[in-house]
Amino acid sequence: MRFTSEQLLDSGVLEREFTLGEIPGTLWTPGSAAPAPLILMAHNNGLPKGQPRLVARARHTASYGYAVATIDAAGCGDRPRSAADERTRAELRRATRAGEPVDGILESLVGPLVERAAPEWRTALDALLSLPGIDGPVGYSGWTALGIRLAVTEPRIAAACLFAGGHVPSAQREEARRVTVPLLFLLQWDDEGNPRQRALDLFDAFGSEERTLHANPGGHIGTPWFEVEDGARFYDRHLG
Amino acid sequence: MRFTSEQLLDSGVLEREFTLGEIPGTLWTPGSAAPAPLILMAHNNGLPKGQPRLVARARHTASYGYAVATIDAAGCGDRPRSAADERTRAELRRATRAGEPVDGILESLVGPLVERAAPEWRTALDALLSLPGIDGPVGYSGWTALGIRLAVTEPRIAAACLFAGGHVPSAQREEARRVTVPLLFLLQWDDEGNPRQRALDLFDAFGSEERTLHANPGGHIGTPWFEVEDGARFYDRHLG
Repeated sequence: MRFTSEQLLDSGVLEREFTLGEIPGTLWTPGSAAPAPLILMAHNNGLPKGQPRLVARARHTASYGYAVATIDAAGCGDRPRSAADERTRAELRRATRAGEPVDGILESLVGPLVERAAPEWRTALDALLSLPGIDGPVGYSGWTALGIRLAVTEPRIAAACLFAGGHVPSAQREEARRVTVPLLFLLQWDDEGNPRQRALDLFDAFGSEERTLHANPGGHIGTPWFEVEDGARFYDRHLG
Repeated sequence: MRFTSEQLLDSGVLEREFTLGEIPGTLWTPGSAAPAPLILMAHNNGLPKGQPRLVARARHTASYGYAVATIDAAGCGDRPRSAADERTRAELRRATRAGEPVDGILESLVGPLVERAAPEWRTALDALLSLPGIDGPVGYSGWTALGIRLAVTEPRIAAACLFAGGHVPSAQREEARRVTVPLLFLLQWDDEGNPRQRALDLFDAFGSEERTLHANPGGHIGTPWFEVEDGARFYDRHLG
């Protein structure tokens, strides 16, 4: 892992860009000296790690005393895309504009994206946990499909805060029953592109004994800010 | 309002029994000197004010710096019941034992209970707000049907935390659209006696722009303790 730039924020949080082989990432660490539990924060469907809403969430969460890390995994963010990926994304845009069903297209886009992303997140996790000042247990935040895959394959993940707004491939819908870590599941009640009933069914399917659904009215990007604070307290309970 | 007994708890909270005409009540006030916002706490379907789960919730909420009050309104708790009420309750027990549908019986029991209880809660509110050390704005906690009625008729109610597990009469289902105060709506996902879909429909129906559903797995009385803490933060946002 090689740090390529750093910036000290007013909150005392240190924000560092890094590369790990081909993987670019960002790490936020709190000002406190004590070892901080780590939270992996991923954006739905592989949106860029520099996306402002994710960055705001990461900075705020780090200010609560957590190390927060994100990466652009293979096929995500600004990483090169295969010709097949480009074709699928073009087809998705076309179908969305035309008002046609997009479920099948999303399945063929997001399914492989999760398959390729998960191993890179585990590689990043190994490297991050070897840094001084970063400690387990590990939390996860954001992209539901990737979170399910990591939760069932990565025993170091101890709690996950998942955002319901995004396509969950059939493979991860199946894996949901095998998720047993405590979950906080965030649902935007009026998310245009993501059927509410599907999210409620997924909440029902999770195997976790401790899981809480937080639903708020409004569209996809309308999650109220207090949910970031509720998320921090969820992590306090399980990673603190 | 006449105080009939008092007890100082280890938390510094003062617990006092009172009577207000025919209405018996309990008031919990925090140890702090500053005027405390008031929370009215009512148990679903008129269960007694001394019920241990309500008392535990009230004591804990008061320790966060709130004045908390509850009463046994007309027909509730240990208050005398009319012969008609007794007959309906006997019929409810019989139908429940026989596994018959109880919706109609609950409607005829809970509907009138809310009608009679609401004015007494408003009377209590007047008396409580005239006490030194108790201040507005006012929060509400618990019994959904009564909370809806109070929220639409009582402008001093500024925020409400409602428990989904209980029969909501058709009149209150209609009134839900007129509720506009911030809401925290608590749902037990596997509540045996209260259909989940009905609670989700009610959450959908509320007129409040700011409303959050918190759902947890488990039966009617399984609400996790951290929801009391989340409730206190909800009040902090709106009554603080």
